[in-house]
Amino acid sequence: MIRFGVIGYGYWGPNIVRNIHNVAGAQLVAVCDKNPAALTRARQSYPFAQVTTDSCEVITSTAIDAIAIVTPVWTHYELAKAALQNGKHVLVEKPFTSSAKEAEELIELAARKNLTLMVDFTFLFTGAVRKIRQLIDEKVIGDLFYYDSLRVNLGLFQHDVSVIWDLAPHDLSIMDYLIQDRPEAIVATGEKHLNGVEDMAFITVYFPHNVIAHINVNWLSPVKVRTTLIGGEKKMLVWNDLAADEKIKVYDKGVRLHNGEKVHDLLISYRSGDMWAPQVEQLEALNVELGYFVDCVTNSRKPFNDGEAGLRIVKMLEAAETSVRHRGALVQL
Amino acid sequence: MIRFGVIGYGYWGPNIVRNIHNVAGAQLVAVCDKNPAALTRARQSYPFAQVTTDSCEVITSTAIDAIAIVTPVWTHYELAKAALQNGKHVLVEKPFTSSAKEAEELIELAARKNLTLMVDFTFLFTGAVRKIRQLIDEKVIGDLFYYDSLRVNLGLFQHDVSVIWDLAPHDLSIMDYLIQDRPEAIVATGEKHLNGVEDMAFITVYFPHNVIAHINVNWLSPVKVRTTLIGGEKKMLVWNDLAADEKIKVYDKGVRLHNGEKVHDLLISYRSGDMWAPQVEQLEALNVELGYFVDCVTNSRKPFNDGEAGLRIVKMLEAAETSVRHRGALVQL
Amino acid sequence: MIRFGVIGYGYWGPNIVRNIHNVAGAQLVAVCDKNPAALTRARQSYPFAQVTTDSCEVITSTAIDAIAIVTPVWTHYELAKAALQNGKHVLVEKPFTSSAKEAEELIELAARKNLTLMVDFTFLFTGAVRKIRQLIDEKVIGDLFYYDSLRVNLGLFQHDVSVIWDLAPHDLSIMDYLIQDRPEAIVATGEKHLNGVEDMAFITVYFPHNVIAHINVNWLSPVKVRTTLIGGEKKMLVWNDLAADEKIKVYDKGVRLHNGEKVHDLLISYRSGDMWAPQVEQLEALNVELGYFVDCVTNSRKPFNDGEAGLRIVKMLEAAETSVRHRGALVQL
Amino acid sequence: MIRFGVIGYGYWGPNIVRNIHNVAGAQLVAVCDKNPAALTRARQSYPFAQVTTDSCEVITSTAIDAIAIVTPVWTHYELAKAALQNGKHVLVEKPFTSSAKEAEELIELAARKNLTLMVDFTFLFTGAVRKIRQLIDEKVIGDLFYYDSLRVNLGLFQHDVSVIWDLAPHDLSIMDYLIQDRPEAIVATGEKHLNGVEDMAFITVYFPHNVIAHINVNWLSPVKVRTTLIGGEKKMLVWNDLAADEKIKVYDKGVRLHNGEKVHDLLISYRSGDMWAPQVEQLEALNVELGYFVDCVTNSRKPFNDGEAGLRIVKMLEAAETSVRHRGALVQL
Repeated sequence: MIRFGVIGYGYWGPNIVRNIHNVAGAQLVAVCDKNPAALTRARQSYPFAQVTTDSCEVITSTAIDAIAIVTPVWTHYELAKAALQNGKHVLVEKPFTSSAKEAEELIELAARKNLTLMVDFTFLFTGAVRKIRQLIDEKVIGDLFYYDSLRVNLGLFQHDVSVIWDLAPHDLSIMDYLIQDRPEAIVATGEKHLNGVEDMAFITVYFPHNVIAHINVNWLSPVKVRTTLIGGEKKMLVWNDLAADEKIKVYDKGVRLHNGEKVHDLLISYRSGDMWAPQVEQLEALNVELGYFVDCVTNSRKPFNDGEAGLRIVKMLEAAETSVRHRGALVQL
Repeated sequence: MIRFGVIGYGYWGPNIVRNIHNVAGAQLVAVCDKNPAALTRARQSYPFAQVTTDSCEVITSTAIDAIAIVTPVWTHYELAKAALQNGKHVLVEKPFTSSAKEAEELIELAARKNLTLMVDFTFLFTGAVRKIRQLIDEKVIGDLFYYDSLRVNLGLFQHDVSVIWDLAPHDLSIMDYLIQDRPEAIVATGEKHLNGVEDMAFITVYFPHNVIAHINVNWLSPVKVRTTLIGGEKKMLVWNDLAADEKIKVYDKGVRLHNGEKVHDLLISYRSGDMWAPQVEQLEALNVELGYFVDCVTNSRKPFNDGEAGLRIVKMLEAAETSVRHRGALVQL
Repeated sequence: MIRFGVIGYGYWGPNIVRNIHNVAGAQLVAVCDKNPAALTRARQSYPFAQVTTDSCEVITSTAIDAIAIVTPVWTHYELAKAALQNGKHVLVEKPFTSSAKEAEELIELAARKNLTLMVDFTFLFTGAVRKIRQLIDEKVIGDLFYYDSLRVNLGLFQHDVSVIWDLAPHDLSIMDYLIQDRPEAIVATGEKHLNGVEDMAFITVYFPHNVIAHINVNWLSPVKVRTTLIGGEKKMLVWNDLAADEKIKVYDKGVRLHNGEKVHDLLISYRSGDMWAPQVEQLEALNVELGYFVDCVTNSRKPFNDGEAGLRIVKMLEAAETSVRHRGALVQL
Repeated sequence: MIRFGVIGYGYWGPNIVRNIHNVAGAQLVAVCDKNPAALTRARQSYPFAQVTTDSCEVITSTAIDAIAIVTPVWTHYELAKAALQNGKHVLVEKPFTSSAKEAEELIELAARKNLTLMVDFTFLFTGAVRKIRQLIDEKVIGDLFYYDSLRVNLGLFQHDVSVIWDLAPHDLSIMDYLIQDRPEAIVATGEKHLNGVEDMAFITVYFPHNVIAHINVNWLSPVKVRTTLIGGEKKMLVWNDLAADEKIKVYDKGVRLHNGEKVHDLLISYRSGDMWAPQVEQLEALNVELGYFVDCVTNSRKPFNDGEAGLRIVKMLEAAETSVRHRGALVQL
């Protein structure tokens, strides 16, 4: 039984707590938040758990094995470091840290202490992302051409970070999980309109072998869109995460080039066949992820969404931020 | 009565010819194409018109007042130049020319000869674009924040030009018409996967006053999308050109920033009200445009979609192409 | 403070319990279910509440003011009768009872005992239905022409009742609330394919003044649809309850008839204007309804969704069932 | 070469004429319409064809082998009879005739004269309907449970016939083609709101073996819908004829009943698997149909959409009209 303390009971924290409460092998011991109103809500729902405004109490408690950190990103490093130093396993909300340097330090510390360090990339545990990964692994899609994601909505504006650090971690982590190759460079553009941080950004990630990813994140869209196009040599797919059913549509469409009669003359033919929407499992992703965390801790297994995965995303976020501030300057990774 | 010769009867030419045939004040005199099969089709539909494979015949004919050039872009300059030199008014398919230099020469020549030179930007004559322009002009949208367009589909691959020259002229010309300000710089990224030219590209256009445009064009998408988001201070809109009805949806949504209790503390409030889909006129845009061309020629009026408008788009296409080849290098306009 | 006992903790019961727990002026005292597993779940979420498998305990408890009955329809009459006889206010799940006779008896009993009797028609408390009612009341729609509802999905098959008693109460109650006139007659058709009860039914309800309603309910549809068309003299609307936003679209469309040149010659003109999606409040309907129940009990106010409303729906369900069994026989109401 | 005369050049006639002009083995000889303006349009597009306001001229012409009748339904009988009597093959627009009696007489006459008599059911030649028929014939769908069609839009109001005769022939003919069994009885309801004929109708058709069809036609809908649900034992499908792509979606969904532990206790299990959108051929249906007509005439082959097929639909239309006027009275077929 892994005993959990959770730091942060704001927007996402209650979901973490609820799932810890429901996952086999996990036990909710304490909830910490600076906001007394949040603690009142926690106490009402989980009267058996300790509540406190002091994160030290949780981090140093001998009744706790693992700490879930669900606080603003600029606090992740200090909290995770203290937790690791106190011998706790750590699940930290994405983005992992505010800088690659911090991430590297935490990775090193967790390794030295032999503790599990996981970054909460909930999307990687959804039925949709797992199904797409399966289609790629089973060579259904064929060699990848591109990944193009649109993630826009109205708000929620963050005070301290741009839309890049707020929304792009989703897409970058999914892209990282699906493409399975190391990106070479990033170009990002964007603009600030209201509160001094970018509220929209357009990020291009270059990969080897002409694979390219593009991510469009925007806090100023009147409609909510969560759509990703993925093109491969054999099949192409559209993933609409807002669709109630048929989230993933796989198209038997493609382009073939033939040599024409003259040199340098390419004849192009298009293939347009059936469309197919595989059934996507409807499990709660966070529940699966927390079960996986418990399993990794229990069996000393290294999670695939470990500190290294978190670090890769932080590096890309840093690169995108640098690029956007220099109007699309190419940043090598 | 303006007497027309049309050069080019391939993909778009038949639409030009059909509309010349239907527009009051216009008379179809001759159709020219290098491909005899195309001429056979033209003769069948318009038995009264002359057909020829020799463009010179049309350009020098004294029975013709105006030439419509509906050929590949690399031929526009030579044909338009010859037509203007022979005293013909010219309607040329977009993109105007292959280079800004060519465009400037044609503009100068038309001005010197006092001839009408129009670039066919059909979209600017659609009910949808005119309605959006009206909403902007009437200050319904408020100060613009951004223009973000997605124009993707499978094919049609071009042999000679990239997706930038093929699809982006639509968006750039609509953007140019709606934003009504001069762009400052362009950043473009993209990738080639099949035949040595970019088959997808992501173009950012920077405007003064933090206005930004983004254009996503892609020949390798399994689905056809034609959707543009436009955000303003007062309202935001979504234009889905593929919707049978309700092409334009105007959202009474917005963000307001207030000063909070502490210095540098911004409180953000969201406004979310009704949505409204104004009725959009269903006229055939090309018909309206040709009527406008006839009117401009007849009354020696300068069209708004003149050579200058064409030149602005060509400059942006050149900039985008330069940028994409240098992986997102900023190109000043 | 109204103290509640809830009988039935199966599919819908937990929602009732959760909302009683959240509504001001309501206090959850006891939960009853025949199924011990259900009680275990209830105890885990509401450790402070009494749980029991014996409904008598709840009904006779002096610590309880009101009973919510959330059990299969054939048990409603006995439970509600016992509750009323014991001086409890009653909120009973729809459909109210299995027969009009039972409903009438309960209405009479509640009136005699001066107790509040409400039927849970949750939909009448949604933002969507209230907005439509408002549009009707404010004469935006004009005189009603028709109400046409499609409510189809795969399952859930009921063992004891047909799709008419399972799905149609939603539509009949909404129709009853919106049309505000008394139906004259019912024709229903349908078919059984699997377990001896109708799994699809098509119900027509005739109202005075040529107003007509049509309800299509189906347990054997591969897709879930919840769409209602409402046509009026001035405006028409589409309510898609599955849409995340823009649930209600109001169309400025209409038909006008003019006298033509000859006698009996009608000229028809169509009006097609803007579409408008009013913002719909996002409150949890059940929460609003329970607050209303508490208010009615506290202030001895007669709810609009009282026993009489429940009886009207039961009469229509009986009529529909009679009609469908006689292949569309007209049943007068 | 079959030489055609076409009577009627109003709404649908031009489509018939254009396709006769394009079909191999067919020759357009004459166009007849009472309206001189229609003839002017015909002459402009087909200068080689004879035009006349006198249908007798066409019917008795020795230069004509076949007559296409594209006039209002109440004129079909007289025109078709005269054409058959003059030895012409006949293609008549649906609905075939105004009454079953007329239809029977024409069938008998065509048989006696050994002439081809075809009713224009264009939908039966679309890629979508043919694909659905194929899925049924190949037992992909399994035994049919139901056919449920929604065909609604604003207008076009007819002066002389109700929405039943205007819109339902589409659905009835498709249903007839797909179900391939003889209907037993019809129940129809509906209402008149404007010009004295039903502007909406809800038609139920009973077939043997618990197969049921339902057709919802409405001239007073603010939105255009063309959606049909078809449920079978093995698969269910949704056909959305307005979808640009993916018109047909086949769902691997179903219900299975098992015997439970107790007698009369049915356990229900649901199957929910992948969805699959087969590619649908994009041929112009009318072109295919006219090619088939030419083939039937040339090779003296009996078309499947012959007078008998037309008669079956007329009988159902008569039954529906009778039923709707008696508020859902069951009419045996």
